[in-house]
Amino acid sequence: MSPLPGLMQHDHPLTIAGLVRRMATVTARSEVVDFRADGRTTRRSFAGVADRAARLGAHLGALGVREGDRVATLAWNSAQHLEAYLGIPAIGAVLHTVNLRLTPEHLTYVLNHGGARVLLVDRTLLGLLEAVADDLTELEHLVLLGEGPEPGAALERFRSEDLDAALADVAPLAAWPEVDDRAAAALCYTSGTTGNPKGVLYSHRSSVLHALAAGMVDTLAVGRGDRVLPIVPMFHANAWGLPYACALTGASLVFVGRDMSAATIAAAIAAERVTIAAGVPTIWMDLLRYAEQHEVDVSSLRCAPCGGAAVPRALMEGFERRLGAEIVQAWGMTETSPLGAVARVPEDVPEEERWARRLAQGTIAPLVEARLVDDAGVEQPWDGTSEGELQVRGPWIAAGYYRDPDASEEAIDDGWLRTGDVATIDDRGTLRLTDRAKDIIKSGGEWISSVALEGELLAHPEVLEAAVIAHPDERWTERPLACVVLAPRATAGPAELRAFLAERVARWWVPERFAFIEEVPKTSVGKFDKKVLRARLAEGALAVCVDGTGVAASASTGR
Amino acid sequence: MSPLPGLMQHDHPLTIAGLVRRMATVTARSEVVDFRADGRTTRRSFAGVADRAARLGAHLGALGVREGDRVATLAWNSAQHLEAYLGIPAIGAVLHTVNLRLTPEHLTYVLNHGGARVLLVDRTLLGLLEAVADDLTELEHLVLLGEGPEPGAALERFRSEDLDAALADVAPLAAWPEVDDRAAAALCYTSGTTGNPKGVLYSHRSSVLHALAAGMVDTLAVGRGDRVLPIVPMFHANAWGLPYACALTGASLVFVGRDMSAATIAAAIAAERVTIAAGVPTIWMDLLRYAEQHEVDVSSLRCAPCGGAAVPRALMEGFERRLGAEIVQAWGMTETSPLGAVARVPEDVPEEERWARRLAQGTIAPLVEARLVDDAGVEQPWDGTSEGELQVRGPWIAAGYYRDPDASEEAIDDGWLRTGDVATIDDRGTLRLTDRAKDIIKSGGEWISSVALEGELLAHPEVLEAAVIAHPDERWTERPLACVVLAPRATAGPAELRAFLAERVARWWVPERFAFIEEVPKTSVGKFDKKVLRARLAEGALAVCVDGTGVAASASTGR
Repeated sequence: MSPLPGLMQHDHPLTIAGLVRRMATVTARSEVVDFRADGRTTRRSFAGVADRAARLGAHLGALGVREGDRVATLAWNSAQHLEAYLGIPAIGAVLHTVNLRLTPEHLTYVLNHGGARVLLVDRTLLGLLEAVADDLTELEHLVLLGEGPEPGAALERFRSEDLDAALADVAPLAAWPEVDDRAAAALCYTSGTTGNPKGVLYSHRSSVLHALAAGMVDTLAVGRGDRVLPIVPMFHANAWGLPYACALTGASLVFVGRDMSAATIAAAIAAERVTIAAGVPTIWMDLLRYAEQHEVDVSSLRCAPCGGAAVPRALMEGFERRLGAEIVQAWGMTETSPLGAVARVPEDVPEEERWARRLAQGTIAPLVEARLVDDAGVEQPWDGTSEGELQVRGPWIAAGYYRDPDASEEAIDDGWLRTGDVATIDDRGTLRLTDRAKDIIKSGGEWISSVALEGELLAHPEVLEAAVIAHPDERWTERPLACVVLAPRATAGPAELRAFLAERVARWWVPERFAFIEEVPKTSVGKFDKKVLRARLAEGALAVCVDGTGVAASASTGR
Repeated sequence: MSPLPGLMQHDHPLTIAGLVRRMATVTARSEVVDFRADGRTTRRSFAGVADRAARLGAHLGALGVREGDRVATLAWNSAQHLEAYLGIPAIGAVLHTVNLRLTPEHLTYVLNHGGARVLLVDRTLLGLLEAVADDLTELEHLVLLGEGPEPGAALERFRSEDLDAALADVAPLAAWPEVDDRAAAALCYTSGTTGNPKGVLYSHRSSVLHALAAGMVDTLAVGRGDRVLPIVPMFHANAWGLPYACALTGASLVFVGRDMSAATIAAAIAAERVTIAAGVPTIWMDLLRYAEQHEVDVSSLRCAPCGGAAVPRALMEGFERRLGAEIVQAWGMTETSPLGAVARVPEDVPEEERWARRLAQGTIAPLVEARLVDDAGVEQPWDGTSEGELQVRGPWIAAGYYRDPDASEEAIDDGWLRTGDVATIDDRGTLRLTDRAKDIIKSGGEWISSVALEGELLAHPEVLEAAVIAHPDERWTERPLACVVLAPRATAGPAELRAFLAERVARWWVPERFAFIEEVPKTSVGKFDKKVLRARLAEGALAVCVDGTGVAASASTGR
């Protein structure tokens, strides 16, 4: 249908530039804090950040960045990273946030596939770049953030400069260009179960709508009176959209950079009177444990949105009892911006029903539509018991992957995103995940591809079959368990297989747990039947040997 | 800029149909209550309302209503009116809510200008229609709501039917049509200072965005745990967008129909545990007065958004002290959907500063951009003291009027809506109205055109000059004061002039107050200089005679 003749409603675009203009005016007095436990905390007003974003926009233009060009970041959470979040999309370029935990192969892949010629990079992370420098086909220019070493010889062929020096030298853009709000604003790759990472493009419209939703009382309830600490990294699903939500609402932002220790988080909350802090369950378990052993004042904290893995009731209860703050569970994924469901329950709901609802993944978020589809493609009712694969659609839900038609085809079912989660939904729209349709392991909020691990294990000369499933883990929620069929007379054990894998996958993917079995169970059509393995594990019928204090240690420092 | 090749973000339309789908699923268990003080309260689930909206859509399709066609309503607030709010736009037609307080001339004008062939009308309001039936050029079909008399002889030429009977006879639409979210969803006329009412068209996109914003913590904070009583009529700026906000968030809705007495409002709040009630200051003054004389339990109420006129501190304080609920001031107009600014102040702001900010019109709402422009067209700084005409733009701000190019031209300044209010804004984005650029009087939340009143006064043979200005009024905030220059030897007094006007304008426009003066002061170019009159009034230098208990009485029953 065409609009009515004479329709005169403002078709005002929803853009990141609009958010920056708001930071320069209505929310000008809010602040961005780079908290440092050593006392070197720095702070800047929203107006100041907006000014620096306008300088960054001008500078990128001078570097030849045009609308639609990707500009990448490889950085921890910081005010400088926030300036990139604003200035890059506001000139119509595309912010590509690179996950600093990728393997060298995947880091190379996403930088080349994303195609940015300019990268803003923390000096402390230059080592990651140096390791892959020779394979980068698109990158030309480095803008250096924070303190640390200057680029080494391996990065000699790139031009490089300091961000602050560059911004000091340029006048801020007087006005942002007009940008179509359906154009791409940001790009974030997600590690799936197989193959290369897949790029999710967010439009200006989707980012602004998501920011509005994050300010709603039934979701993250971010408001002007809040001080928000996003512990979730800014290279991970846009830090759950919190930077843009704060820009819109005027909530102040607190960043702790690379130091995500419980001690620093507790200190930041105390010093900056943080009211909302967002992270994966592992972070909150650490903080709770820390609070049991130290004097902490987190009385300002009222809400800790928590996603990336199921949250145990004991953690929620302990958190409320000892820290006085409510953990609010949420469900989402990179493809869903990520707000898909939030388990915020109205206050007048009776205690036990509250818990039942809080322990679910939450109420389907506003503007998100959901359906459950069984294996035969039949839509299932919302009765709280019928299961199906969760499929979602909406203005901030991906409908495919950037330059990846095969993955897009596989991910989308008639306009709905296949989430890979099996779930029930009740007649209140409460989502409960019950199983996983795709074959993935979620460890500390990050995906581990079991299929990729199996492929690498099979590369070992003594491995005949390998099936990797999730093993419950107190700290990481899940860790991979490798079920391996060895060749006759094989001598390889856990230590050797771990060493073998360590050269081929990210350190924190390497399993600590192995089960040596005689055969991987198969389905009628000969596929690995992991359901049988999971059932055996649940029954205690798998002999699991553990070798991995080294990995656990590297996982905690590397994350 | 064209979107990046490969951009795969869902361009999911923001439509009223999406809200109805949400009512049928996620918010299905919320309810709509038609409260009646006599005990005949009825209630229906959101799922039931969504089902009836789908029946209404099917029925209108069978009547020949097509996308883009207007369908009008002339009705008090009710569940049936809500069904029209949903079912009409969801099929792509345009909901035209007709103000039942219009003069017969304006009623005729908006019905003909809007062009609806189908009108949903409360049986109790058929008399208004009968009075103008002969002049209606477009209307063909009446759908009758509620109880009351059947159409009389004057309405014989229209087909008519009962809504409930029609819905019982038709199957609900299985799916809503795909509608462009920039298409018109609703049409509401505003009475300006001169000439005919002007139509503001809301798009689907603007309505859904506005509903999202109403759920944000810093605006109306409508959430799933709320029970909302919109006292503001559904024919007035979409009842401040509350029906759509409730559909989206799952807040239950309570309607009191035509009985807006303090006794009924108090009873509805008590019986239905209302948490948010929205209305003009007059409503809250009445409720406060009522509460001083009667036993009322409004303990469930936590927030009373209040707009349409400045709210006195005494009212806010009395309301909080006696009723325990916070009046939150908001600013907006039909052209702004209406959320333009909301004076919700974070809790940690010190007491006296809180009051200063709560007594302002509020913080500029999310997605709304504002500027102050002085008489010379120069933009003014946001320093809390520099004044200028308030101009706004944004995705739910009108950029013109329906089929009215002249009025559109006058209202829009380079893409910004001229609000007619003179204001300051401070460095927190706090809006304070200081004067009125346009020549209008706001009485009980409704506009009265001083220019139109002057025109009618001049029609009286004994009136030489007439200038109408606003007079402060305890009950209505403002009432018109007619400053009249009579011809030599004239005999007309207030009573005669009032009788003369009563036949020409709406009853509640008729001034109670008159000042007989020797000459209307003029500006250098010979225009009426009302600033001088206002200054004289403020100084007590105008002799005001009052004649109007009759008008006050009719105003309170007619409103």
